[in-house]
Amino acid sequence: MMKKHIQAVAVVSAIIFSQAAMAQGTKNAPVISDAEGPIKIINLYDLEKEASTKVAKGAFGYVEGGAEDEVTMRSNSTAFDKKKILPNGLAGIDGVNLKTTFLGVELASPIIIAPMAAHGLVHKEADRATIRGTQKAGTLMAVSTYSSVPIDDIAKSAPGAPFVFQLYMSKDNAYNEYIVKKAKAAGAKAIIITIDAGTAGNREADARNNYNYSVATPNVSEFYKGKNITQSQARALRKISFSGEDIKFIKRVSGLPVLVKGVLSPQAAETAIAAGADGIWISNHGGRQLDGAPATFDMLPIIAKTVNKRVPIIFDSGVRRGTHVFKALASGADIVAIGRPALYGLILGGSEGVNDVFQQLNKELTTTMILAGTKDIEAVKQNKLFDPEKQEAR
Amino acid sequence: MMKKHIQAVAVVSAIIFSQAAMAQGTKNAPVISDAEGPIKIINLYDLEKEASTKVAKGAFGYVEGGAEDEVTMRSNSTAFDKKKILPNGLAGIDGVNLKTTFLGVELASPIIIAPMAAHGLVHKEADRATIRGTQKAGTLMAVSTYSSVPIDDIAKSAPGAPFVFQLYMSKDNAYNEYIVKKAKAAGAKAIIITIDAGTAGNREADARNNYNYSVATPNVSEFYKGKNITQSQARALRKISFSGEDIKFIKRVSGLPVLVKGVLSPQAAETAIAAGADGIWISNHGGRQLDGAPATFDMLPIIAKTVNKRVPIIFDSGVRRGTHVFKALASGADIVAIGRPALYGLILGGSEGVNDVFQQLNKELTTTMILAGTKDIEAVKQNKLFDPEKQEAR
Amino acid sequence: MMKKHIQAVAVVSAIIFSQAAMAQGTKNAPVISDAEGPIKIINLYDLEKEASTKVAKGAFGYVEGGAEDEVTMRSNSTAFDKKKILPNGLAGIDGVNLKTTFLGVELASPIIIAPMAAHGLVHKEADRATIRGTQKAGTLMAVSTYSSVPIDDIAKSAPGAPFVFQLYMSKDNAYNEYIVKKAKAAGAKAIIITIDAGTAGNREADARNNYNYSVATPNVSEFYKGKNITQSQARALRKISFSGEDIKFIKRVSGLPVLVKGVLSPQAAETAIAAGADGIWISNHGGRQLDGAPATFDMLPIIAKTVNKRVPIIFDSGVRRGTHVFKALASGADIVAIGRPALYGLILGGSEGVNDVFQQLNKELTTTMILAGTKDIEAVKQNKLFDPEKQEAR
Amino acid sequence: MMKKHIQAVAVVSAIIFSQAAMAQGTKNAPVISDAEGPIKIINLYDLEKEASTKVAKGAFGYVEGGAEDEVTMRSNSTAFDKKKILPNGLAGIDGVNLKTTFLGVELASPIIIAPMAAHGLVHKEADRATIRGTQKAGTLMAVSTYSSVPIDDIAKSAPGAPFVFQLYMSKDNAYNEYIVKKAKAAGAKAIIITIDAGTAGNREADARNNYNYSVATPNVSEFYKGKNITQSQARALRKISFSGEDIKFIKRVSGLPVLVKGVLSPQAAETAIAAGADGIWISNHGGRQLDGAPATFDMLPIIAKTVNKRVPIIFDSGVRRGTHVFKALASGADIVAIGRPALYGLILGGSEGVNDVFQQLNKELTTTMILAGTKDIEAVKQNKLFDPEKQEAR
Repeated sequence: MMKKHIQAVAVVSAIIFSQAAMAQGTKNAPVISDAEGPIKIINLYDLEKEASTKVAKGAFGYVEGGAEDEVTMRSNSTAFDKKKILPNGLAGIDGVNLKTTFLGVELASPIIIAPMAAHGLVHKEADRATIRGTQKAGTLMAVSTYSSVPIDDIAKSAPGAPFVFQLYMSKDNAYNEYIVKKAKAAGAKAIIITIDAGTAGNREADARNNYNYSVATPNVSEFYKGKNITQSQARALRKISFSGEDIKFIKRVSGLPVLVKGVLSPQAAETAIAAGADGIWISNHGGRQLDGAPATFDMLPIIAKTVNKRVPIIFDSGVRRGTHVFKALASGADIVAIGRPALYGLILGGSEGVNDVFQQLNKELTTTMILAGTKDIEAVKQNKLFDPEKQEAR
Repeated sequence: MMKKHIQAVAVVSAIIFSQAAMAQGTKNAPVISDAEGPIKIINLYDLEKEASTKVAKGAFGYVEGGAEDEVTMRSNSTAFDKKKILPNGLAGIDGVNLKTTFLGVELASPIIIAPMAAHGLVHKEADRATIRGTQKAGTLMAVSTYSSVPIDDIAKSAPGAPFVFQLYMSKDNAYNEYIVKKAKAAGAKAIIITIDAGTAGNREADARNNYNYSVATPNVSEFYKGKNITQSQARALRKISFSGEDIKFIKRVSGLPVLVKGVLSPQAAETAIAAGADGIWISNHGGRQLDGAPATFDMLPIIAKTVNKRVPIIFDSGVRRGTHVFKALASGADIVAIGRPALYGLILGGSEGVNDVFQQLNKELTTTMILAGTKDIEAVKQNKLFDPEKQEAR
Repeated sequence: MMKKHIQAVAVVSAIIFSQAAMAQGTKNAPVISDAEGPIKIINLYDLEKEASTKVAKGAFGYVEGGAEDEVTMRSNSTAFDKKKILPNGLAGIDGVNLKTTFLGVELASPIIIAPMAAHGLVHKEADRATIRGTQKAGTLMAVSTYSSVPIDDIAKSAPGAPFVFQLYMSKDNAYNEYIVKKAKAAGAKAIIITIDAGTAGNREADARNNYNYSVATPNVSEFYKGKNITQSQARALRKISFSGEDIKFIKRVSGLPVLVKGVLSPQAAETAIAAGADGIWISNHGGRQLDGAPATFDMLPIIAKTVNKRVPIIFDSGVRRGTHVFKALASGADIVAIGRPALYGLILGGSEGVNDVFQQLNKELTTTMILAGTKDIEAVKQNKLFDPEKQEAR
Repeated sequence: MMKKHIQAVAVVSAIIFSQAAMAQGTKNAPVISDAEGPIKIINLYDLEKEASTKVAKGAFGYVEGGAEDEVTMRSNSTAFDKKKILPNGLAGIDGVNLKTTFLGVELASPIIIAPMAAHGLVHKEADRATIRGTQKAGTLMAVSTYSSVPIDDIAKSAPGAPFVFQLYMSKDNAYNEYIVKKAKAAGAKAIIITIDAGTAGNREADARNNYNYSVATPNVSEFYKGKNITQSQARALRKISFSGEDIKFIKRVSGLPVLVKGVLSPQAAETAIAAGADGIWISNHGGRQLDGAPATFDMLPIIAKTVNKRVPIIFDSGVRRGTHVFKALASGADIVAIGRPALYGLILGGSEGVNDVFQQLNKELTTTMILAGTKDIEAVKQNKLFDPEKQEAR
């Protein structure tokens, strides 16, 4: 009797999980951008509107949309408004410095790119342009398991550019081992295990647009090449939930630091650290997975208290402003990641567009840091935000 | 001097209570649906808009509308947003199971259909199609006193399908005894006494549409057949308030478990349990009765604390999402009932439409359970929601 | 240098206070209603829209408008939503009774008419029709100092109808004594001293409409007849603030109970009671005076605690629903007054329209009382509202 | 790699800081007003709309706009709604007096003009008309470093009118000393050091309008006349953050009281007082600098507690109503400053328009004081506001 809804879940989750299906290549190729060059940015919210006109509706809906009523998605950005930054013109600083260090790499600013599958959905140069833009900005990209270009090609597109690799784990450890070793060989500085996508979120834009994600995922297809695997076998391989053992396994076979992404509770953070996680990545997948989950910014101070500086915290979901970056850092984050805005920059200006998105955030963050009297990222982390509800600074 | 408003109340309340009037059959028959077949559902909110185009305006207004300013009605759904679900990708589960047991019956999911009068107002097959849809979904329907089809016909329409019977009590215990025995004979698993409709709510859509509910209520008319009863005598028979004695009486004459529906305070729950109630049904009648009453979800944890697992809690009003079902279960409910959405499914697809409404909720609940790391209904009940106001999980 | 704004205040306050000016009679007579007969009411909010089409824009703006941004005015009605009524179907009541007693008079319901100047602005029969409507409803009207018809004519229009008289005090005690004695002679049951209109509120609708209130105020003009008084002398006579002595004086010269209207703080209530006030009338003048003042419903429980049943509490401002009446009574009020809605009834149906407004509220209050399980006004007063913020009933 | 965003910041900050650039005079002269005469004011919000039609779009956008999403800007006005004024008709007062004293000068009301650069951007008579309007109103103007007319000309335009001088400090103390001595010579009663504009806020209206501020700043250009200074040298001279030493230096070289403007935290207030500040000016620059900063009214009571009457508090940002002035005074402010509304008055009516803006606020404040029963400014300061959240007066 429940057959029907199981099928429905399967259809949707197939978008992300049916690795074999993805290996079969692109059909219904959407209209995609091939722009390359600097772009004018007023702010990242406006960028979304502008980008929406440049790619096919279904593809854009896939990128832009969130789960169900998008309450969680929208709350990600509005949650930042709950805390206020106290200007401080009497700090006596004479400039600001945005540099920071992550995974042993010096970054020009504490902003990196979160893993996303859809670079090849919206731009011809796909992840290659994104990493070049990230390199221009002096920072770091997370490459998705489902990157549209093989990970070694991405690495070669921007020699010397640091990157990390995001993993959607399979029940098949041969696959898992194969893919992380490939990432390490390509030069990945760390592996990110995503734990919040055990099934695909219920993104209604796709249903409304009758849209089916169908971009080649060469990292996956390479592993399955020649192997005879049916769609239903592939589907059965998806791993819907994770454990400390998974973290330990990936650490062992990769020999790389492992970050756990999709943490949204102190308990999950504790479990991950106990299993050896080298970093906690707070995320609700940009509101694309569980509508009804809290905003990441609402959970950040609570999780940071549990993590207690044992490992670095990476924070994403809803970041659109330099003040958001500032508030996240001041609430316990060490690094802040952006998702969709990078794709909008990619759509509008290729690698230069991606760089311009970083520069816009850097510009806003610089202004914020000067006005708040915080001379560097460490000072931002020490800054006490003001909570109007409690009538007191943190 | 108060004559006028007493008349006005009488006119409105006559819709539900003047049993004799109802026995006189349908006039001004509205345009109704005869659809039968699977339907496409994006979500249950959209379903309402779609269904609104398929039946007469007055009839749809009767189904869709709430009391007065509809503050209570709207708050029922928005109240769920106040609590958040913490995703948990590190639970190590390998699948989810929605099955549960209620009144000794195994249900495919914890979602049932609340009692409603209006099946025959919107669909030719009326309650018969609804119970067939419910049976397809592997769950249970509550049949209203004012069902549009005699209860034994409903039972025969879906042999073996479990159902319960809802009772609007009369001051005439002969009537009360007659009707619950008839329900028992037809196979009802329990009797539900509705206590929140001692007079009809002030539903303005009906006044605006000059709409008068007038669908035959054969369960009632059968009792009055041949008896010579005037409208004003019938009106005088309506029971406007209830007591523990009523609960005891119905238990005794029916020999069935009795659930008390329309509980919205710990005090009422305590009174009902003290009188022997076998279940507490938290409801504000979908916001159709007392505008100014709290959202059911706001009262659920408070009542659950009082009930303290002595009897099961059934919860309704405002449930439109799998996350709503999840949050209700995590806040103390054992079973969740839906009302209007089942009628929308009925309007659009008959029994298949009703089943599709269940499957949509099951699909959403499945996704939610996977992402929250809860493997079964018991785990959902143990789940701690996050309250952003208190910055802590339950 | 401040000359200009003093003039501006003077111009506006002249509307209410320059008694001599008012005594000079009506010019620029507005279009007014002469309707008489029953009206259809969906609810009192809708009534406002309907009435707005029947009288001149400037006059309607004067009636409908509030001070400045109308934040206080709008908050009066929305404040009621903060508290919830818990339905109680297990109270075992067998009917409800709305009767109550006020100033020794039995009223059909606890709802009366607040003092207003503008009856003659909107209807040809003016206060005469209003008191006839109030009499039909079995309740009581407060007649304003600035009634458009002499108080004795109002009394004669509805022989036997109880009424009270509202006083805008002058610095000239001869005037004050004259007018309250006239009211007593006409049969007033009590004198209401208004203390919240020491200067006119800043009602921008009037400024936008270039509207100047100019309806004859015969109670006032009769006193000044033959006396040679200039506008500036009259202006200097307005009393901008009051004291316990004023209350004592009016009690002494009138020999009637004195109610103090415009109380919005516990301190003012205490001062008034200490000076011998026989009732506390909580009001913010329907949001027409000080924008930035709290909603009356927000202050009611706090003031009721201070009053502690020493004298009755009359409550007004923002009452548009039976549930509002219920919530006010359950929060400490003994009597609830309505203002603008009575004028809307008057505009649309004369005395019958006024009565219909009462019947609408009575109907809604009856429904609410049945559903809340409160059999009479005393039971309503004992009822505990639910405060969702505190997660507990009062 | 960060070159680009550094340039961007530089371009924007050049608007305020590149003193040499400013010294080069106006190009792209905007359409400006030359109105002079009394204006009709309904309220200051409406004035903005009216004024917007009288000057070039880019110029108006510069005046009206705030930083980024304008959350801080809008919150400045809405924050006042959180506290309520309790009317008090039983205070027994017989009039109100708005006079107060500031810096040894008697003012007709506690409202002054905040420093602004843009007088010459919107009106031909520039700061000269503004100071004449301020003089008519019996109050005081703060003249900006970037006034469009030399400070001595402004002083001569309104002989005897009190004024203070606002300073944007340079790293070049010769400049700082020169300019404050010039201000003192012109008759300034005090120096205001602005500490919240170490870089220009990110005002998107300017970016959207492709607008570049370019009005002559003669106070600055006079200093640089004949000196050979490049744009980049000028840029390097901007002081981005301040210290107690700066306050001490300005006190010493000016021999005038020094007020510190842009304080938004208790810590900054303490630092300023410790360095000898003679007044604390609470401001967020009208929401033009750091979007994400709290509303000034939210910080006022907290800062006032720290200041503890050691020095006077001047308050600005978002003041549009007499009730705002009242609430600020009742929360710890001694003087309230207005910014944009004065420019709107200037645009619409020159010096008379500026005066009318003051009279409108005075009129509203007078009404508020009468209704609140506060006879003078001292009584307003003692008044206890009502906080609905806490259900208690301050």
